[in-house]
Amino acid sequence: MQISHIEHIGIAVKSLEDAIPYYENILGLKCYATEVVADQKVKTAFFMVGQTKIELLEPTDETSTIAGFIEKKGEGIHHIAFCVDNAANALNEMAEKGVALIDKAPRAGAEGLQIGFLHPKSTGKVLTELCENPNKK
Amino acid sequence: MQISHIEHIGIAVKSLEDAIPYYENILGLKCYATEVVADQKVKTAFFMVGQTKIELLEPTDETSTIAGFIEKKGEGIHHIAFCVDNAANALNEMAEKGVALIDKAPRAGAEGLQIGFLHPKSTGKVLTELCENPNKK
Repeated sequence: MQISHIEHIGIAVKSLEDAIPYYENILGLKCYATEVVADQKVKTAFFMVGQTKIELLEPTDETSTIAGFIEKKGEGIHHIAFCVDNAANALNEMAEKGVALIDKAPRAGAEGLQIGFLHPKSTGKVLTELCENPNKK
Repeated sequence: MQISHIEHIGIAVKSLEDAIPYYENILGLKCYATEVVADQKVKTAFFMVGQTKIELLEPTDETSTIAGFIEKKGEGIHHIAFCVDNAANALNEMAEKGVALIDKAPRAGAEGLQIGFLHPKSTGKVLTELCENPNKK
């Protein structure tokens, strides 16, 4: 598995509306898109910072894993996502190396990416996502 | 203030010795340096991932803020650091915009950077560092 760069950093927020002004008006970043990811029960907002996106994650209902995270730990950095060439191969390689997987096969994530999560118990408690961007090939 | 990229992601770990093999053997990254930052009471290990470093942080004693973080929240992502052109100007701009600062003026960080932290109460609970790299000018 070859990681090219950090694809995004996921940050859990209670409200995009409350959070976006900090990133835009204070940090000077630009929210270039928002998207509802129904599968993950989140509404996202994206900011580009060099090679890497900041992805704000607002839960769309209380059963969202993001709602659970905020309830337990409060708002803040939720996960790190690495860009790989082939998500299916990368997940298979992780499984072969003994890493516990949340996703055994890639699924559709925001922005048309193919994504899969590794379990924090195998990653030093860092929730870790592997992403393949089929649009950049 | 112009942010060019994410300079690093800081990750709190109990032990570099235990954590480094995951990053090297599982993720395939290379630890290119370690450093003791006496001022912050941490021992760090660095991995380059595209433009961004992963910085593992092991507390060197129990009074380290990293030890406190691990005690309270457990191991995991600790902070995000943005690269700016001039850390002193950036901190001044943040203060003018009403952001609470942990560091009112830049201080020496790992790898010869000039760094300053913003207070999480002003940043949506994301501990945020601004870094200037005087070696890249």
